[in-house]
Amino acid sequence: MTTLVIGANGKIGRILMERGTKAGLELRAMVRDPAQRERFEAMGAPVVVADLLDDLDEAFAGVEQVVFTAGSGPHTGLDGTLLVDLHGAVRSIDRAKDRGIRHYVMVSAMRAGDPLGGPEKLRPYLAAKDAADRILRASGVPYTILRPGRLTDDEGSGKVRTSRGDPAAGNTIPRADVALALLALLEGDATGRTIDLLSGGTPIREALA
Amino acid sequence: MTTLVIGANGKIGRILMERGTKAGLELRAMVRDPAQRERFEAMGAPVVVADLLDDLDEAFAGVEQVVFTAGSGPHTGLDGTLLVDLHGAVRSIDRAKDRGIRHYVMVSAMRAGDPLGGPEKLRPYLAAKDAADRILRASGVPYTILRPGRLTDDEGSGKVRTSRGDPAAGNTIPRADVALALLALLEGDATGRTIDLLSGGTPIREALA
Repeated sequence: MTTLVIGANGKIGRILMERGTKAGLELRAMVRDPAQRERFEAMGAPVVVADLLDDLDEAFAGVEQVVFTAGSGPHTGLDGTLLVDLHGAVRSIDRAKDRGIRHYVMVSAMRAGDPLGGPEKLRPYLAAKDAADRILRASGVPYTILRPGRLTDDEGSGKVRTSRGDPAAGNTIPRADVALALLALLEGDATGRTIDLLSGGTPIREALA
Repeated sequence: MTTLVIGANGKIGRILMERGTKAGLELRAMVRDPAQRERFEAMGAPVVVADLLDDLDEAFAGVEQVVFTAGSGPHTGLDGTLLVDLHGAVRSIDRAKDRGIRHYVMVSAMRAGDPLGGPEKLRPYLAAKDAADRILRASGVPYTILRPGRLTDDEGSGKVRTSRGDPAAGNTIPRADVALALLALLEGDATGRTIDLLSGGTPIREALA
């Protein structure tokens, strides 16, 4: 079963590709720049060079699952937010629907469900993520929407919580733990869920079961 | 039957309010700034002061139809595009759904159905309008999506076409004709349509029948 990883060359994407390929999953890295091929070929992973805003036929050929972890992030230009995080996501959801994908896992963001509750500077970004999440939910494609807290490059602990709950517990999560959560979701069968993800005390698989 | 006009103080909104109120429609002007009340009260139209990004309960009380003609337009900052054109629209759609509104008329934009087919500078704006239109369509709220061409302040001719067709016919439309089209849609019963609107040779009511 082939999983297309959109945004494989991002920070979460790279960890996901490495851990997942080692674990025996068939993860196809989608990258924009041919120069990014090498990293993934060295892992033994299949690679497709494609642009979210261009032809996606080759990228989606034979694919059964999708992870969307592309995006300009909250700190880049809003033209990228609109074209990549929003419209690129929408295009990939359309394609997933056409192809009858069995599971689309969206990396969203904490508070995307309430953009105006977020810090003022992040609100436009959260509005874009909210819209992409809504369009995915309404698409008919089986989905999981994962909403990590503030991402860090800390080492993963393998332990998380899935509700904001106690604010004293912080609102961050290492990218490595997000990548492990994505693997657990890809290996599982559950769909139709929207899940906050923050560092916590429960092993990832148990927290997502 | 009360129709809430979101964006009443915009260029299309003002013409719609004036023509519609004269024609005997109960149009409630939603404005952000209390100083904008006077214009509409002078027309004899009810006014509600409300912000799309704040509490909308009073604005939607007793409303049966909605026109969304708010928005920062394609030439303002993309934070406004994301917060008003997109997220403001989404919030009003949520409210329309909660209240069981019988018709939501969205003023969208030509090419919102194909953002990457538009001029490069407009693509982020078109991506936002596309997302809002998709969220409206999937909401379950009876809708019309009206997609005018490039707006002008020319006098209205009362005549339009509803497909781009012959490019020699131009891709503009006076705001006054968009306002007349909105009135025709509010007075009609048809929903579930997405309609391009450009200057042409067919009387508005006939073209939208």
